[in-house]
Amino acid sequence: MGRKWRFGMVGGGKDAFIGQVHRIAAQMDGQAELVCGAFSSTKQRSFESGAELGLTGERVYGTYREMMRKEAALSDELKPDFIAIVTPNNMHYPVSMAALEAGFHIVCDKPLSRSLDEAVNLEKKIRQCKRLFCLTHNYTGYPMVKQARAMVADGTIGRIRRVVVEYPQGWLAQRLETKGQKQATWRTDPKRAGGSCCMGDIGTHCANLAEYITGLHIDELCADLATFVKGRPLDDDGSVLLRFNNGARGVLWASQIAVGKENGLNIRIFGEKGGLEWRQEEPNTLLVHHLDRATEIFRTGTGFAGPEAAAVTRLPAGHPEGYLEAFANIYRSFFQALEAVAGEGKLKENDYDYPNIHDGVRGMRFLEAVVRANSAPEKWLKIDA
Amino acid sequence: MGRKWRFGMVGGGKDAFIGQVHRIAAQMDGQAELVCGAFSSTKQRSFESGAELGLTGERVYGTYREMMRKEAALSDELKPDFIAIVTPNNMHYPVSMAALEAGFHIVCDKPLSRSLDEAVNLEKKIRQCKRLFCLTHNYTGYPMVKQARAMVADGTIGRIRRVVVEYPQGWLAQRLETKGQKQATWRTDPKRAGGSCCMGDIGTHCANLAEYITGLHIDELCADLATFVKGRPLDDDGSVLLRFNNGARGVLWASQIAVGKENGLNIRIFGEKGGLEWRQEEPNTLLVHHLDRATEIFRTGTGFAGPEAAAVTRLPAGHPEGYLEAFANIYRSFFQALEAVAGEGKLKENDYDYPNIHDGVRGMRFLEAVVRANSAPEKWLKIDA
Amino acid sequence: MGRKWRFGMVGGGKDAFIGQVHRIAAQMDGQAELVCGAFSSTKQRSFESGAELGLTGERVYGTYREMMRKEAALSDELKPDFIAIVTPNNMHYPVSMAALEAGFHIVCDKPLSRSLDEAVNLEKKIRQCKRLFCLTHNYTGYPMVKQARAMVADGTIGRIRRVVVEYPQGWLAQRLETKGQKQATWRTDPKRAGGSCCMGDIGTHCANLAEYITGLHIDELCADLATFVKGRPLDDDGSVLLRFNNGARGVLWASQIAVGKENGLNIRIFGEKGGLEWRQEEPNTLLVHHLDRATEIFRTGTGFAGPEAAAVTRLPAGHPEGYLEAFANIYRSFFQALEAVAGEGKLKENDYDYPNIHDGVRGMRFLEAVVRANSAPEKWLKIDA
Amino acid sequence: MGRKWRFGMVGGGKDAFIGQVHRIAAQMDGQAELVCGAFSSTKQRSFESGAELGLTGERVYGTYREMMRKEAALSDELKPDFIAIVTPNNMHYPVSMAALEAGFHIVCDKPLSRSLDEAVNLEKKIRQCKRLFCLTHNYTGYPMVKQARAMVADGTIGRIRRVVVEYPQGWLAQRLETKGQKQATWRTDPKRAGGSCCMGDIGTHCANLAEYITGLHIDELCADLATFVKGRPLDDDGSVLLRFNNGARGVLWASQIAVGKENGLNIRIFGEKGGLEWRQEEPNTLLVHHLDRATEIFRTGTGFAGPEAAAVTRLPAGHPEGYLEAFANIYRSFFQALEAVAGEGKLKENDYDYPNIHDGVRGMRFLEAVVRANSAPEKWLKIDA
Repeated sequence: MGRKWRFGMVGGGKDAFIGQVHRIAAQMDGQAELVCGAFSSTKQRSFESGAELGLTGERVYGTYREMMRKEAALSDELKPDFIAIVTPNNMHYPVSMAALEAGFHIVCDKPLSRSLDEAVNLEKKIRQCKRLFCLTHNYTGYPMVKQARAMVADGTIGRIRRVVVEYPQGWLAQRLETKGQKQATWRTDPKRAGGSCCMGDIGTHCANLAEYITGLHIDELCADLATFVKGRPLDDDGSVLLRFNNGARGVLWASQIAVGKENGLNIRIFGEKGGLEWRQEEPNTLLVHHLDRATEIFRTGTGFAGPEAAAVTRLPAGHPEGYLEAFANIYRSFFQALEAVAGEGKLKENDYDYPNIHDGVRGMRFLEAVVRANSAPEKWLKIDA
Repeated sequence: MGRKWRFGMVGGGKDAFIGQVHRIAAQMDGQAELVCGAFSSTKQRSFESGAELGLTGERVYGTYREMMRKEAALSDELKPDFIAIVTPNNMHYPVSMAALEAGFHIVCDKPLSRSLDEAVNLEKKIRQCKRLFCLTHNYTGYPMVKQARAMVADGTIGRIRRVVVEYPQGWLAQRLETKGQKQATWRTDPKRAGGSCCMGDIGTHCANLAEYITGLHIDELCADLATFVKGRPLDDDGSVLLRFNNGARGVLWASQIAVGKENGLNIRIFGEKGGLEWRQEEPNTLLVHHLDRATEIFRTGTGFAGPEAAAVTRLPAGHPEGYLEAFANIYRSFFQALEAVAGEGKLKENDYDYPNIHDGVRGMRFLEAVVRANSAPEKWLKIDA
Repeated sequence: MGRKWRFGMVGGGKDAFIGQVHRIAAQMDGQAELVCGAFSSTKQRSFESGAELGLTGERVYGTYREMMRKEAALSDELKPDFIAIVTPNNMHYPVSMAALEAGFHIVCDKPLSRSLDEAVNLEKKIRQCKRLFCLTHNYTGYPMVKQARAMVADGTIGRIRRVVVEYPQGWLAQRLETKGQKQATWRTDPKRAGGSCCMGDIGTHCANLAEYITGLHIDELCADLATFVKGRPLDDDGSVLLRFNNGARGVLWASQIAVGKENGLNIRIFGEKGGLEWRQEEPNTLLVHHLDRATEIFRTGTGFAGPEAAAVTRLPAGHPEGYLEAFANIYRSFFQALEAVAGEGKLKENDYDYPNIHDGVRGMRFLEAVVRANSAPEKWLKIDA
Repeated sequence: MGRKWRFGMVGGGKDAFIGQVHRIAAQMDGQAELVCGAFSSTKQRSFESGAELGLTGERVYGTYREMMRKEAALSDELKPDFIAIVTPNNMHYPVSMAALEAGFHIVCDKPLSRSLDEAVNLEKKIRQCKRLFCLTHNYTGYPMVKQARAMVADGTIGRIRRVVVEYPQGWLAQRLETKGQKQATWRTDPKRAGGSCCMGDIGTHCANLAEYITGLHIDELCADLATFVKGRPLDDDGSVLLRFNNGARGVLWASQIAVGKENGLNIRIFGEKGGLEWRQEEPNTLLVHHLDRATEIFRTGTGFAGPEAAAVTRLPAGHPEGYLEAFANIYRSFFQALEAVAGEGKLKENDYDYPNIHDGVRGMRFLEAVVRANSAPEKWLKIDA
């Protein structure tokens, strides 16, 4: 197995959802160990969280700046290899910059930043610092997403013509943010979330998933964002027409007011010779359509799933692998890159299958374009490649 | 049961798909009888079809004009009550006009006509002639579509915010029209189909279904049509952003190149208090989402489905009712209107639950707007109410 | 199309469910016409039903005996070709005997009779009279059931090892028979239903479906019947272990107290090389499992379904064909046999794909064995071939 | 969070499937740490596995006896709190006995032992030693299984009448055991597996799941086991009729030759007022049937799932929790009991929701009865309570 990677965490205190997800995912396969953290914006809460996580007091911090400074000064045997950033969006950029300056690799939650400017700056900094950066577009970690991508790449469905990607949720159908629900509060606050709520939080997952599986780029788009819940300053629903760089057309929509929908990310892709359908809520199944024969049901763990899926599969077929396992697969790929850097000392980020800074910047280009397109009078708006 | 309604048919010869559907549907409940027809564009084929259908030679015709003239001259005990028009789109208008002049009520396949102008003229003519006109937007005949409409009307899901309606098919993913496939040939021919293939043939069903269930009107739209199969002069795929008259947003997409999809019409509607999901290929199930309790599975034939669904249900729950039964339900409503006209002599078309000339004209307004919007530089285009 | 077959009906008055099913099914394809009937046990109700069905008074009868006598005396151009028997079980035998004596072919609802003795007698009589006899085990009429049968026959799944067939319903979970529900009343009454309620009404469908698809015979069985609703004299639930003549094992269970289940007939078959799964409530889908490749979804109306399915398919793929269409397919096969008898004058019942008297007798052998096995001390009980 | 529980492992070397499952599950929530192990039957393989798992050489052992002896001699700060036994069945008993003698608590894979005698002895020993014993009937760890159990307990579905529990797999449809597949080899070997392959490996899960959810006991049974693959000495398929202690009837079947089925454990339960359906392969959904209203879809993580489900749910609704999470939930409950023992020093095993020695003995009683019933001439065989 080799060594265990040490990591610190910024954010992810007691009531946070995604911090615990990162901790379980990073450590699932016994390849990593949490060693320090600045878990909360208040010192006391940070220490409470640290204690719950079994950290000794000296490696729990009240601020991320303090943590970066002190941890960077530790010996190589002690200091973290990477920092996991699991804060609200507005902190992704400053914490990443600080971590880079302290010399750490980074795993960061999505979206990359509050603005495209920040994203571009961050990319520049990462290139300078020669550090690895992983953005947790976690849905690409599912085995059947890998299978789909491999089947596009090997020509199973032919040249792609149509892509439909959706992310319906219902949890913000009412004004939860005024009732102290922490997740709702920051996501609907422009200061912390950036220029978009729905599109930033889940629309970017759609765009990333579509580009990841198809290998195409969204070239132009036309957007219609809406805010249905009164008093909410950001979008809670939106639809986007897509045109891809190969001429394929698409629809992307995401909503946080789709009552009864939980976390309904799904994608359908149609090419000249076949089609693919995948749904996040039943993630171990991939439907594969063909021109002249019956639709096939590909399943995680089966002998006829390809090596790309097998490489991220932990269990025999029929033993459902879920969200945490997919999330852990992102970390697993990141650890392979860490291993390579540690071994060869060379950074070849593109050789590894995890969402990197380039994907993060693309996500911000998408998001910036969607928000701009929404109020533009023109029908179509280009995204820079 | 009362009387049997006599009907004649224009189109629907041997190889036609929809003619046989109309014949089975119209006669399923023993309320109608085919008495005459001009089944084909060639006299010989028309007679062959008539013979197969058990009609005597004197009531089979080589042209619809001859049929209208001769049948109108028959006695009241013999002549048809209505004409079923099941030709390619380009003949809907001239045959309807001829049938009206001959004094017959009409059941006509969709879309209403080749152009909006024809549609408007036809509506005027119908008002003058005081005849009943039924357009077979057959998907509104399913019991669970009625249930959905009733649940919107009674406020179960609250004010509507988002509508997603899709109609993926895959049968035109290759260039079938050059291989003598009759259905493909006329649908992809602008002379017979009108200004659109995909949107005219199936996109109009989407628009009609969305407006039927929600009781809303599409107010504005933004469209992106595509032709993926080379050499095809009309669209075989398209996406439309929708804005409804109450502020709801929506997405409508239809495709004939979605390999592996059969006849995947489906609709999802989300309101302030709940949501609804229905799929044509599993038509006896309606998912009903709620804000604060578990999603419910409504089913055709169950005791807890409402009276609107029960009225068009023939079998106990669990005995699947299909496409033909739904189609027959449209006829059944039309027969109720015929009955009322025959009884009271008064035309109150809006009292009956079948798609009428008004729906047909709306469909053409939608279609005309989609085609225009596709090449318009502006983002949004209004549809006249 | 050839001629229209004339038929009379015994049973099937106003409130009956199955009478209307037979009328729609028999007439769906325009190949048959109802000409006479004894629809009810009371003369007045029979006449009311006849009038509703558009029959003139002189061909509606108060008793089936009167009908047989008078209809047999009519001219060949008028008298019925066959009689549809849609009464409670206890009348199947006497009405069939009377119809045979009057010279008519027969379509009869299942189960064949109240007892195995009756069944055996009836078979003898049919052989003597050289009449056609069709028992409406209607579920074998579905296209995907034909597909399954063809795939077993052509070796797709190899030698069969395991069969699981289920028929859960929930409608008799409470004591409906004391509340005037007509369907419940006769089915739970030994005098009219025979020795079993649940197994006779729906268990026999399971046995028939399993033998039809697999081409095997149930050789031995072990049964456990239950009556859960107090005061009910017959079984409302039962489980049966099966051993087939090729060594395959199986489970058959049926229940009328499975709350929430509608008409959940389904079958799963596993062989040495593959497996098949079919559910009546979603009848247009057949899952096909393979040893070394992905499970396939076969669908009614697709180009890759075989000729056996295509022969009973009315619509393109994705246009759901339901219970009535499957029922009509049984009639359609029966009409082919009628045609052959009319043409060649020879009876070759086995050449036609509808359930015949042999299947009916097998059903009664199964039923008799199940009831006997239920109270037998031995574990296994043989069924005569 | 409190302390981390230290554990040792017996079995679970490199190619073993279930060892890795136990390691991930035990450590998922950061509550436990693997400290020692005897991972394989050969010393070298054991050390290789230990090294891969990051253990230092002095705590890896060539035999479990050596491990028990040396680990028991360590200080309280170092020695393991419990031993996880993940060997083939034949080792469960001797390793458990040794662990008890060494003073350790135990987590053991199922089935409990090779024979009922061993099981009874082990229970006695456990009572004497006052140690905790957890048997990983892991499927009871799923949130929707807890929900089902709670809904039975609170009367939602009324007095239970029928239970159907199935476990179809297809992986042993061919003679894998002669091809060096390790999982197949020991499971089909009577010396290592005990008296049953299919029923021991997966049938016992069915019985446990049915009794866990319903709170009932299987009272009598009638069994039919089969061996379809030639040369295999144990059953690879079997069906069992069940009678429960409240009079409910049931069917249990399991198969390893059901081609195309992966790990299809599922259960359906029908009571006087409702019904429940759960499938392991889509574990986050529970269907809840009612007498007089629509079927409901209960889902993991939703606000309307009850506290029993919420207590074992890690993620918001729509984020699939899978097999590993359910397995980890068993460990989590076991840790609560460890905590209590450590705190109060009192053993109250029944207060905690994990499968204990009593469940293990019941499983062996079931298994012994099934094997005996299979060859018994009588129809019904009692299971001791």
